[in-house]
Amino acid sequence: MLPTKAYAVQNETSPLAPFEFHRRAVGDNDILIEILYCGVCHSDIHQARGEWGNSIFPMVPGHEIVGRVAKVGAQVTSFKVDDLAGVGCLVDSCRSCSSCKAGEEQYCQKHISFTYNGTEQDQKTPTQGGYSSQVVVDQKYALQVSKSLDLKAVAPLLCAGITTYSPLKHWKVGPKSRIAILGLGGLGHMGVKFGKAFGAHVTVISTSKSKEADAKRLGADAFLVSTEADAVQKAAESFDLILDTVSAEHDLNSVLSMIKLDGTLVLVGVPPKAPEIHPFSLIPRRRSIAGSMIGGIKETQEMLDFCAENGIVSDIEMIAMKDINTAYARMIKGDVRYRFVIDLKTL
Amino acid sequence: MLPTKAYAVQNETSPLAPFEFHRRAVGDNDILIEILYCGVCHSDIHQARGEWGNSIFPMVPGHEIVGRVAKVGAQVTSFKVDDLAGVGCLVDSCRSCSSCKAGEEQYCQKHISFTYNGTEQDQKTPTQGGYSSQVVVDQKYALQVSKSLDLKAVAPLLCAGITTYSPLKHWKVGPKSRIAILGLGGLGHMGVKFGKAFGAHVTVISTSKSKEADAKRLGADAFLVSTEADAVQKAAESFDLILDTVSAEHDLNSVLSMIKLDGTLVLVGVPPKAPEIHPFSLIPRRRSIAGSMIGGIKETQEMLDFCAENGIVSDIEMIAMKDINTAYARMIKGDVRYRFVIDLKTL
Repeated sequence: MLPTKAYAVQNETSPLAPFEFHRRAVGDNDILIEILYCGVCHSDIHQARGEWGNSIFPMVPGHEIVGRVAKVGAQVTSFKVDDLAGVGCLVDSCRSCSSCKAGEEQYCQKHISFTYNGTEQDQKTPTQGGYSSQVVVDQKYALQVSKSLDLKAVAPLLCAGITTYSPLKHWKVGPKSRIAILGLGGLGHMGVKFGKAFGAHVTVISTSKSKEADAKRLGADAFLVSTEADAVQKAAESFDLILDTVSAEHDLNSVLSMIKLDGTLVLVGVPPKAPEIHPFSLIPRRRSIAGSMIGGIKETQEMLDFCAENGIVSDIEMIAMKDINTAYARMIKGDVRYRFVIDLKTL
Repeated sequence: MLPTKAYAVQNETSPLAPFEFHRRAVGDNDILIEILYCGVCHSDIHQARGEWGNSIFPMVPGHEIVGRVAKVGAQVTSFKVDDLAGVGCLVDSCRSCSSCKAGEEQYCQKHISFTYNGTEQDQKTPTQGGYSSQVVVDQKYALQVSKSLDLKAVAPLLCAGITTYSPLKHWKVGPKSRIAILGLGGLGHMGVKFGKAFGAHVTVISTSKSKEADAKRLGADAFLVSTEADAVQKAAESFDLILDTVSAEHDLNSVLSMIKLDGTLVLVGVPPKAPEIHPFSLIPRRRSIAGSMIGGIKETQEMLDFCAENGIVSDIEMIAMKDINTAYARMIKGDVRYRFVIDLKTL
């Protein structure tokens, strides 16, 4: 058992505060990662505050983890000491269902061990995340991280990156696609980068005109303010796919109006209240609404390799561990461009 | 101008009553059909009562029309006098957009001329439907009807038939598919017949246990009562596709729970209130909700030919024209197995 320093929440109303707990000992197939950086995801806030109704306390959030391998188990072949390694949203799954066998562990049909606010495969032992000094993880659920990228800015790829990469790949976005990214935050800004890297025409849709310059800087071809009815009307039936990254309440029927015949609205953000979808927003254009959840280990590795080849990382703002509560408050206001990353040396 | 007898509603609160109006003269590309039978669709009620907010009065409903060709224009090559012919939900479209060129006139991007409660391509002249003695239609928008089937029972194929046939084809339902049909009404009973004809395993999901015997008689492999939580739980993640034909309010999140990874809920019914869809009903299984609207002329002809080859027709109950108001009242109670068809000789 490995004593581990961390920041945790004790219940849904408490702030994050120093916390100590034990990681499991390094097993034969495990690696011990000394955590260097951890991204701060909006879902950290939802779960820390019990907003999804499934919170386990005390909770150490964090699933955008990069660090250096400090120890490897006897059977480990994929990593050696001093390698860089990453951990994303899941640290284990059943390994035997059809989803796991297909390398889509995020859709495991038995039990996914989420990186935090979840349980190990025994369905009892709570998992704890990356706002901590170290993590022990099975080599099969750890990712290889290239030395060629800025490591701090790689951390958010483990969730924000794969969450946007996977649906764009799944729905075959390419050079002939006209897509829109709804919301320019941690997820959205990665959506723009991947959309452009795949050759698509990319429009950013935002409530805030103030994000236009940034959208263009990130590579967007066009920008649309979602509260301007004229602009929405003008964009009617113009997108093959809209990737909706917004986790605040918003009208999906207006968003759907901008999607072409046979196009798809893909939800990756989770608003607090279930949106109302009018059947007439779907039926007369055979439109679809789908959801997509992170990605499997194989695809996450593919995404990291793609980023290394194409020089793609997240836009980040570094924070010290003690500033995490302030960071949460700023994120809720949308005041971050575009991902906070904790420097774990400050723990 | 051709004097035409009909039944119409004068406004959203009035009952259907005798009405006389003029059809256009038979143009060079038109055929005049003496209407023999017209099916009664649930959307007739919605529109007659102004429930979709787009009603044009006076309104002659009816878009499940079959009859005999009484006259053909000088340029008509597809029909001759005395042929059987059908008219479905649309009687014209722009003919030049990509949807029209692809034979998917139901998704015309300029202007669809619906068979009633719509306008001709001039976007002014109101269209009137099949609760009438005759109809004049361009040969391109009329369907060939086989003599081998019971003509009365063919009428509902023009809407209920194509509305269920088209999405099952579009989402590639076949011998390996496990599908469910939600709601066993005019649309649903056709969904069962087509699902079985395509080789799928078909479950009927209904609020009413009383429909089980009929579901089995129609060919369903299984039956599930949607209000029995245990049964729904047991069917979790078991269907590749659910075709939702219900136009009453119902919980789609419970329905979605029964869909497999990457499966689709296809809406063809239109409930009065926009349903709430929780993102968590979609995201963790990459499920989709889509809508589908009737079908194009080419596919409608394909469906009618498929029905002729496979002996498929609707289950019907014949009514006289004067009984239409009673029929509406019974339909709202779900008291019809499974489609009323008006015998226009009684007009």
